[in-house]
Amino acid sequence: METFFTFLQRRVDDCSSLLCVGLDPHVSDLQAPSAAAALEFCLRLVRQTAPYAAAFKPNAAFFEVFGAEGWQALSQVAQAIREESARLGSKIPLLLDAKRGDISSTAQAYAQAAFSGLGADAITLSPYLGQDSIQPFLNNAEKGVFLLCKTSNPGAGDLQDLLVKEEGSEKTEPLYLRVARLAQAWNTQGNLGLVVGATQPQALREIRAAAPDLWFLSPGVGAQGGDLAAALQAGLRPNGQGMLIPVSRAISRAENPALAAAALRDEINAFRP
Amino acid sequence: METFFTFLQRRVDDCSSLLCVGLDPHVSDLQAPSAAAALEFCLRLVRQTAPYAAAFKPNAAFFEVFGAEGWQALSQVAQAIREESARLGSKIPLLLDAKRGDISSTAQAYAQAAFSGLGADAITLSPYLGQDSIQPFLNNAEKGVFLLCKTSNPGAGDLQDLLVKEEGSEKTEPLYLRVARLAQAWNTQGNLGLVVGATQPQALREIRAAAPDLWFLSPGVGAQGGDLAAALQAGLRPNGQGMLIPVSRAISRAENPALAAAALRDEINAFRP
Repeated sequence: METFFTFLQRRVDDCSSLLCVGLDPHVSDLQAPSAAAALEFCLRLVRQTAPYAAAFKPNAAFFEVFGAEGWQALSQVAQAIREESARLGSKIPLLLDAKRGDISSTAQAYAQAAFSGLGADAITLSPYLGQDSIQPFLNNAEKGVFLLCKTSNPGAGDLQDLLVKEEGSEKTEPLYLRVARLAQAWNTQGNLGLVVGATQPQALREIRAAAPDLWFLSPGVGAQGGDLAAALQAGLRPNGQGMLIPVSRAISRAENPALAAAALRDEINAFRP
Repeated sequence: METFFTFLQRRVDDCSSLLCVGLDPHVSDLQAPSAAAALEFCLRLVRQTAPYAAAFKPNAAFFEVFGAEGWQALSQVAQAIREESARLGSKIPLLLDAKRGDISSTAQAYAQAAFSGLGADAITLSPYLGQDSIQPFLNNAEKGVFLLCKTSNPGAGDLQDLLVKEEGSEKTEPLYLRVARLAQAWNTQGNLGLVVGATQPQALREIRAAAPDLWFLSPGVGAQGGDLAAALQAGLRPNGQGMLIPVSRAISRAENPALAAAALRDEINAFRP
């Protein structure tokens, strides 16, 4: 048995890429507001970008918006990723971006829906309900979790930047750093990572220090090369591993998504030690 | 136009009830592990308990676990709630227990999936990503949000009990209290409430003081009458309003769910001033 991050590492090595291709069939990017158009949008991206994708990351919201048909489309996208993997002879991880967070038997049902139902290899989760809300997703070490830690949206600071007291001390640290330390402690099976926005290199650096072993999923780069360099420098492990860079629109809106993905992969690799 | 909580208040008055009937078709409670059995389970509950339900609360996880068919079943449950409402001549709110939490256009898509797609009247959300992750759900005042604040699971304290520094002061308060204050401030349109577990009367009391106007969704009561009294005493507004008590298994596993719901409604009402 191989843990999720061992599997991810193998794929990263196979394709020499830290690029995670986001599958976000936002209705404004579709030919028509339908599950069929969402599926078409994703299948095109999967087929064109698979050789350069360390992982694919469909966002559940853009499928749920089409109800049962959307869920069916998501399942077909997962199938297409498995088919491309077989064609390439290298399995590509499917990260379900779902940001779920619930307790006990409910968490168990969400884990089953993602891992058994859709065949996802990893999922994004919220930390607000604590360890027992995460544990049902971690029980199978072959499946992975990326826990929200420090996001890049305007309201991220409302909770994440709050200063919390360190236990048994008068010192304080931001909540996101506490989450990183908790995740480092909860990662007893090698299948827990963090979502850390690529837009704040200083936070990335602090979180890397607090969680030296964890993989980061670091959104927010897009087409801005400057940010990319700073983010990779701050977040990569010394061995040039440990970060996945998800990109959606800069690939899906490109005239040639395959070329855009290849260029992004190369751009990222240029900053790896 | 009527805000979500005005609508809820009307229904609470119509049926003299603060009972929220949870629709949790957990696979272990079903005749068979199928979406059809989940639907059957929920339809029976809706038909039997509608006269006593201030609201219905289906939990998305137990439908997602059946994939596209589960989503279809959830949609049919929503339809059944609308039909029972018409039959009773009093619209019963549908709270989708989904605990979503994502940003910008993704939050928008989740809001559309819940409110337009399923016709839900309110949704549960996580606060970890901050105000801009909540706002897309609040824009339409007819739709409501219950924001996770203080939950009743063992790991709730991992984040929620952390002491955060108050701005411009050396004083600290638990994170859950900060979330309550933020929610009170974000509730500019009368459609934001809080999820506060019924198992901790002291926290309920503090949160009621911090957010005197907000409605609470307070799970964790089940069949224990003692907890119920303490919870209602701590969380109700002085006018005997402002709390919904969700109950799932104590109703669904009862020999006669209608009688169980009626008894719970009466038990709750006995503690209202």
